[in-house]
Amino acid sequence: MTKEFIAEQFKLLQTSIIQQLEAADGGATFITDSWDRAEGGGGITRVIQDGAVLEKGGVNFSAVHGPLAEQVSKMMQVEPGNFFATGVSIVLHPHNPFVPIIHMNVRYFEMSSGEYWFGGGIDLTPHYIQKEQAGVFHQHLKNVCDQHNATFYPSFKEWADRYFFIPHRDETRGVGGIFFDRLNETGTSMSKEAIHAFVMDIGNAFAPVYTRFMKENATIPYTAEHKRWQLLRRGRYVEFNLVHDKGTRFGLETGGRIESILMSLPKLASWEYDVQVEKGSPEEYTLLHLKKGINWLEA
Amino acid sequence: MTKEFIAEQFKLLQTSIIQQLEAADGGATFITDSWDRAEGGGGITRVIQDGAVLEKGGVNFSAVHGPLAEQVSKMMQVEPGNFFATGVSIVLHPHNPFVPIIHMNVRYFEMSSGEYWFGGGIDLTPHYIQKEQAGVFHQHLKNVCDQHNATFYPSFKEWADRYFFIPHRDETRGVGGIFFDRLNETGTSMSKEAIHAFVMDIGNAFAPVYTRFMKENATIPYTAEHKRWQLLRRGRYVEFNLVHDKGTRFGLETGGRIESILMSLPKLASWEYDVQVEKGSPEEYTLLHLKKGINWLEA
Repeated sequence: MTKEFIAEQFKLLQTSIIQQLEAADGGATFITDSWDRAEGGGGITRVIQDGAVLEKGGVNFSAVHGPLAEQVSKMMQVEPGNFFATGVSIVLHPHNPFVPIIHMNVRYFEMSSGEYWFGGGIDLTPHYIQKEQAGVFHQHLKNVCDQHNATFYPSFKEWADRYFFIPHRDETRGVGGIFFDRLNETGTSMSKEAIHAFVMDIGNAFAPVYTRFMKENATIPYTAEHKRWQLLRRGRYVEFNLVHDKGTRFGLETGGRIESILMSLPKLASWEYDVQVEKGSPEEYTLLHLKKGINWLEA
Repeated sequence: MTKEFIAEQFKLLQTSIIQQLEAADGGATFITDSWDRAEGGGGITRVIQDGAVLEKGGVNFSAVHGPLAEQVSKMMQVEPGNFFATGVSIVLHPHNPFVPIIHMNVRYFEMSSGEYWFGGGIDLTPHYIQKEQAGVFHQHLKNVCDQHNATFYPSFKEWADRYFFIPHRDETRGVGGIFFDRLNETGTSMSKEAIHAFVMDIGNAFAPVYTRFMKENATIPYTAEHKRWQLLRRGRYVEFNLVHDKGTRFGLETGGRIESILMSLPKLASWEYDVQVEKGSPEEYTLLHLKKGINWLEA
């Protein structure tokens, strides 16, 4: 399985996801911005703004290569050499506070030495946590994982709880999902082809479950107070991405394409001083469930 | 000069600044939130929200002490021991896009070994850069500096250009100002009392110049497009604070009081994909002047 084939599959995945999102949104199309990287490779950034359901978001593909800077190879703990990296990255911010924010990423990394791995993740950030929605989401991910390896869902779910966490707020970003990195034959006893099939299944699982949430929730009426809460929760999303997200910080520090990296930020976000929530409110319910270790399948 | 005296002077400075800001705003008062730090000391966080001129901001005082964590002492390159730190920190976000964002900080740090230093800075972030306003601001700071040491303004102005810089955007945060750190007898050939007098003069210089900008610009009419631009520029302010600002990151990593640290974030900020500005527009003028090394006194 060549890196070119993997990249081509990711590019097709990008197109497929965009078709499904545009059909579900019905109000805007994704613009296309192709870019080249001076040191080698490039990408296709596709962005939606002011859709009917999606206020702002991106579905990005990239395939970049070249010499790996020494400090980066140290950070990544790989031998110096030439690297190749390809992936699809998605963040979507809806208008309606009852439609959750979603993030998905699948990626492949290879060094000229032959070392390689797959990585990825998908996590859901509802402004208002709904038990049933979180259960549907996790069951969907578990079903995909279980078709490939029975250990994947439990370990990758826990990994997501650790990764999508905001230490300075002592809260998770949302209801989690799955996260995995450096997946190859060594760690899994699976062939490269089998791991690739898993990664593609995760990529393909994204649009069906998210467009379901779009359809189910985009018409729920909401008030100015719901909107206010949504903007505050988006503020936390910004905090996570700029302060903690390894992918974002890696991109910023290594001179990645800024507009593509920061497509993850919302059109509008808000901060207020020391926000308090009412006892028994949906806002309090949400805060009480931004915790690691919740089993959403049984919740 | 004792650390208690320095802290008391900073506390009086906080009160004085708030009185001047409340008088200039006329629409809201600063709420008071006193807090204790478990390991020693505490602070007085004072926050304004939805004033007549100021949309959101804080004028914070703190005086904290206790054992310095080993990793922190390494980061700061001081011998292990007990530390004492006190300071006043200000960030203000106005409603009107033609009133600039302002930041000011004065601080004092002392180790049980006797090692000490002062630090501080003040920088102006106009959403729309106005040459005359930037000139007034820098002349004001230069006047204060020159009364104490002729080398201060040129070197601290350059330091601010380097510090208030957003590498991933390749732009400065605003029109700069002054920044200084680790100021003591060794570096300056000035007595502790003389350095303290300089720091207090910087602190006292803040309110007169900023309330002038509030009064001059808060009634300038603005359009939805001006507001849009303001929210985009606030987005950059958020990026600087969360990604680069050493004070913010230090606070987040060492378990500082989150709500006090993040009072610097605006009520509303915005991100859009790959924003373009019109040739010859005030927005373009602003972007063209977010550069290091501009001499605003002659600009």
